[in-house]
Amino acid sequence: MSHFQPVALEHASRLINHGPTVLVTSRSRDGTRRNIMAAAWSMPVEFTPPRIAIVIDKKTFTRELLKDSGSFGICIPGAALANLTYSVGSSTGFEDDKFARLGIKAVAGPVLGVPLLEAGCSAWLECRWIPEAHTEEAYDTCFGEVVAAAADERIFVRGRWSFRDDNRALQTLHHLGAGNFVCGGEVIHARAPG
Amino acid sequence: MSHFQPVALEHASRLINHGPTVLVTSRSRDGTRRNIMAAAWSMPVEFTPPRIAIVIDKKTFTRELLKDSGSFGICIPGAALANLTYSVGSSTGFEDDKFARLGIKAVAGPVLGVPLLEAGCSAWLECRWIPEAHTEEAYDTCFGEVVAAAADERIFVRGRWSFRDDNRALQTLHHLGAGNFVCGGEVIHARAPG
Repeated sequence: MSHFQPVALEHASRLINHGPTVLVTSRSRDGTRRNIMAAAWSMPVEFTPPRIAIVIDKKTFTRELLKDSGSFGICIPGAALANLTYSVGSSTGFEDDKFARLGIKAVAGPVLGVPLLEAGCSAWLECRWIPEAHTEEAYDTCFGEVVAAAADERIFVRGRWSFRDDNRALQTLHHLGAGNFVCGGEVIHARAPG
Repeated sequence: MSHFQPVALEHASRLINHGPTVLVTSRSRDGTRRNIMAAAWSMPVEFTPPRIAIVIDKKTFTRELLKDSGSFGICIPGAALANLTYSVGSSTGFEDDKFARLGIKAVAGPVLGVPLLEAGCSAWLECRWIPEAHTEEAYDTCFGEVVAAAADERIFVRGRWSFRDDNRALQTLHHLGAGNFVCGGEVIHARAPG
């Protein structure tokens, strides 16, 4: 049973606001090819409409599929998927279908049909590519607009992350480099200023 | 005594690879005005030369100073600076000098003279602005090249983050929204794939 529930688009930026390492999913326009890779370099750029930027190297299979289909997905792996995240970030999709090789099950995004992961992930964002030829070429930086989002109700509650002792396996990963990820720890509530 | 040591430029991207919330510092070209704000939306975009992207709203004083001087700083606050981070992110520099009001001490960046924080921070990056009119206008996304970087040797050791029980106060903050920050917790060492 999936615990995923829709996230209102005006709350979608919160899913990556704290800088998690993500999985990028994509498929060809005709649906015959697909890929999944890891990306540490992404960020929201706008709340409404919800838009994001993500660095995807121009030599990757993901970049080819993104341009072909005009869409991509961002899936947020939980701590229990650290090995999988490192693994899909260390091999190329040009050679085989990583979903099949690694036994990754995907659901189809509700708007664009992008393959998305739920099992082991805390959330996903389905994105429509916004072509920006210059930044794609100069910085490998691609822009997208979030057209649908969903999150596991055990960790994202009423539009907010809820990191607790009982959901550590779903908490986000943050790549320090070389396969070392720091997981979420204590949550600090800053004092309101003034 | 400062524990800051220079970070090799080819390792600079590692300082923000895991998505910390950062402080953005800036000053006017003539040095008479300066500002500090918080930013959750930043990411590396290239290793060599080290380049980064950061979202800075076009209505902010920081954006004005950045364009005036052609430079800005990124300082990475430790967990002990959660209140300060929230505070500088919740007021505007158009009205007063936040450094003076909040008693923030700054050092001058070695290359461009950007005001940078060390006390309570784990690292800083001094950046030269790369003008990109379209993405600045469309997405408030500014690009910069890192020209100098340094980190506290108690938490960034030989080019790598070292998150340990004895340096929790220096560990990075990741903004969940509304003044709630998640701090670094357990570090997971993913298995090498294959």
